[in-house]
Amino acid sequence: MHTLADILLARSIAVVGASANPEKMGYVILNNLIQGGYAGALYPVNLKEQIILGLPCIPSVADIPGELDLVVVCVPAAHAASVLRQAGAKGAKGAIIISGGFGEIGNYDRAVELTDAAKAYGMRVIGPNCQGVNYTANRMCATWPLVKSPGAIGIVSQSGTIGAEIELLAERDGIGVSCFAALGNKSDIDEADFIDFFVSDPHTKVIALNIEGIGDPERFIPAITRAARIKPVVALKPGRTEKGMRAVASHTSSIAGNDRLFTAFCRKYGIIRADDLTEFYDFCKAAALSKTPMGPRVLIISSSGGAGILSADAADEAGLDIRAISGETIARLGQALPSQCVLANPLDLTGDATASRYEAAFDALGGNSEFDVILAIFGDPIAGACKVIQRQLSVASMPVVVSFLGGGDVQLRETALMHQNGIAVYPTPERAVKAIGALVRLRLAAARRERKMVI
Amino acid sequence: MHTLADILLARSIAVVGASANPEKMGYVILNNLIQGGYAGALYPVNLKEQIILGLPCIPSVADIPGELDLVVVCVPAAHAASVLRQAGAKGAKGAIIISGGFGEIGNYDRAVELTDAAKAYGMRVIGPNCQGVNYTANRMCATWPLVKSPGAIGIVSQSGTIGAEIELLAERDGIGVSCFAALGNKSDIDEADFIDFFVSDPHTKVIALNIEGIGDPERFIPAITRAARIKPVVALKPGRTEKGMRAVASHTSSIAGNDRLFTAFCRKYGIIRADDLTEFYDFCKAAALSKTPMGPRVLIISSSGGAGILSADAADEAGLDIRAISGETIARLGQALPSQCVLANPLDLTGDATASRYEAAFDALGGNSEFDVILAIFGDPIAGACKVIQRQLSVASMPVVVSFLGGGDVQLRETALMHQNGIAVYPTPERAVKAIGALVRLRLAAARRERKMVI
Repeated sequence: MHTLADILLARSIAVVGASANPEKMGYVILNNLIQGGYAGALYPVNLKEQIILGLPCIPSVADIPGELDLVVVCVPAAHAASVLRQAGAKGAKGAIIISGGFGEIGNYDRAVELTDAAKAYGMRVIGPNCQGVNYTANRMCATWPLVKSPGAIGIVSQSGTIGAEIELLAERDGIGVSCFAALGNKSDIDEADFIDFFVSDPHTKVIALNIEGIGDPERFIPAITRAARIKPVVALKPGRTEKGMRAVASHTSSIAGNDRLFTAFCRKYGIIRADDLTEFYDFCKAAALSKTPMGPRVLIISSSGGAGILSADAADEAGLDIRAISGETIARLGQALPSQCVLANPLDLTGDATASRYEAAFDALGGNSEFDVILAIFGDPIAGACKVIQRQLSVASMPVVVSFLGGGDVQLRETALMHQNGIAVYPTPERAVKAIGALVRLRLAAARRERKMVI
Repeated sequence: MHTLADILLARSIAVVGASANPEKMGYVILNNLIQGGYAGALYPVNLKEQIILGLPCIPSVADIPGELDLVVVCVPAAHAASVLRQAGAKGAKGAIIISGGFGEIGNYDRAVELTDAAKAYGMRVIGPNCQGVNYTANRMCATWPLVKSPGAIGIVSQSGTIGAEIELLAERDGIGVSCFAALGNKSDIDEADFIDFFVSDPHTKVIALNIEGIGDPERFIPAITRAARIKPVVALKPGRTEKGMRAVASHTSSIAGNDRLFTAFCRKYGIIRADDLTEFYDFCKAAALSKTPMGPRVLIISSSGGAGILSADAADEAGLDIRAISGETIARLGQALPSQCVLANPLDLTGDATASRYEAAFDALGGNSEFDVILAIFGDPIAGACKVIQRQLSVASMPVVVSFLGGGDVQLRETALMHQNGIAVYPTPERAVKAIGALVRLRLAAARRERKMVI
């Protein structure tokens, strides 16, 4: 029996239903494989065309000259099973079936025929009716849109759109992803397979899971509980409300189930639950880039009093501890900073703060042990912000999460630099605070596990 | 007595403390006035320099050759009052005082001296200790960062950073602002003056208010209640939590007051309250671009089942009514759409939907009166999305709010086009739903007022 890894690490791919028409999936996927820099053999399979995108066409899978690891199937549903049989006969290990027209429209006979064809040859199947897979380590963008940036986030998603959006945000931020997979009908490979793969995958540091319903709890629950012990798992499970649950039922016919049960399940196993798409990406980014704080005590340092207050509101609501700074530390900060600074938590460096004023504040804090994490807010066009955070991270063990706003072009430049250097930056103070909250929940779950293991 | 309008419509400006050093405010503001295209006379006042940024320097305000409407003061606090006296003697109507070093650091004598100097000449003052003003209709960017795009949002902000961020987001979206003002110490002009100005300003369609504490309720409350009857008012008031309130006290020494009182106040007068910075901008954008729906009944149309479910969750939480589509309409949709579409609310056009499938759905809805507003979600790279929404808006009275995600470059292009054409677009379904919720609250407040006026 082959495995998911055989698909993701394929060294030769046939795109069956490759097309010369840029509006067809058989063109888009072949083009993304080429543009994405796929290094293995690529075979466009098309009976009528001679050449597509510069590659010679093969009339059928059976005619492929060399070895074949993977078929990407874009032909109509009626032909999918016979493509699998031909591919199986050539020794293919897996298939990604983009085509729809199976169980999702009630065509169960066709779905069974497909599964039988794959099983007969021990082939593994992603889909049908799916958006495909992008595994950046193998430069294998067998999906759309084209995303090339490698990174630490491994995405397995029920919804193509939600997964693709996370991928696009990660690319825009310059932090990239290790993998994006949209599962479709899950005739064979499901979330559990990807979770198991991600746990052992050296490229994946964070597992991002968008799930609508748990198909096979006996495989899913052991997989995710094991994963959460080893790597951060961030989960977005739509269907939190009654109306949302009904919408899940008409989307994937899966039962969203009692949402409070899922919440309790996440809390028990240390899975970070995101309530919306923004949190889903933000929490993945934090887990991918930032160290986990040792506890919930946050020191807020800001050049903007207003942004400091917004973050204090958000921290209070997130249950974080924005305790007062000790008198001793206040005294040291007072010596290091000009008189207009407000020596409290939030520490307000005021609107004319430069990067060197942040540096002075960090230096005055020294090896401070009153706090577990710093939220650094740059609320103005402060050049050199990235350097000052890098320096702080190199001398102190405390993690720093950044919010940058009101900074125009300087902000865009510094944010890009910080992301390149593995510092998580958020465009609003509230989003940064929520991300810190997620990191703290990860730490608390780990602490609970360690206690359990000691007892 | 001069008015705020005399400042915002100034036809000649002296920048006192103009500097040749790009790190100084006296350089940045002069440069932004020039780059922003200010059409009136500009006088850099500097005793030592001959020319700054191509303009001849004047040694002192008294030496300015022509008429003078406005002084922008960037000199140290100790010299500010004497600058005001010289400007007053020349007939200046107002001053924007960027310099700090007054009440905010306990220097109350200096604050009183400043106020007395202005009063002696009937001059109006913005600041001191403020980030200045940008009034795009007069191309007067007497602040930073440089923002030039004209638009419908008038921002008056306690915090420079928060106001500037809204301005920058509006510029990035191509929708612009009418005004941005950061008030600082509010020695004279405060929120009430700006609110009154915005009510009569033909460029301002939405009033965006970031406020930490109400200094003068006897002026503020009549101003804002009158404004809310005439134009949408969106308010962000940090200090919602206990920790936030404490942070407000150390920022502006104002008392945030009982937050529940402010919430009740907003509800009573139809002011849309934003809970965080993201909502602040999102609600302003919706009010600036979109018509107000007649009620809370939302029809969700999506190419992404997953995004549809996220929006159903958010709509349920926002108290919106995502009722079922009537049998009659379902029948019409069924005839117009391919069989894989899920005919429910959310209406799932599925992942291969093109712009023309949205058009077919809109046509099938026709003059539908079952819903008050449409949320159109484009969850894929759907070219032509803008055109199809424009067409729908031209034939039906129902407002349409858009969420676009998972669409890569196509998404960026179509989003920009939609913003140019006055269609509000959000990057996540949940943010779009919350913006619709804000529009519905505006409508409900108007309806309450009308009932009251009838009785």
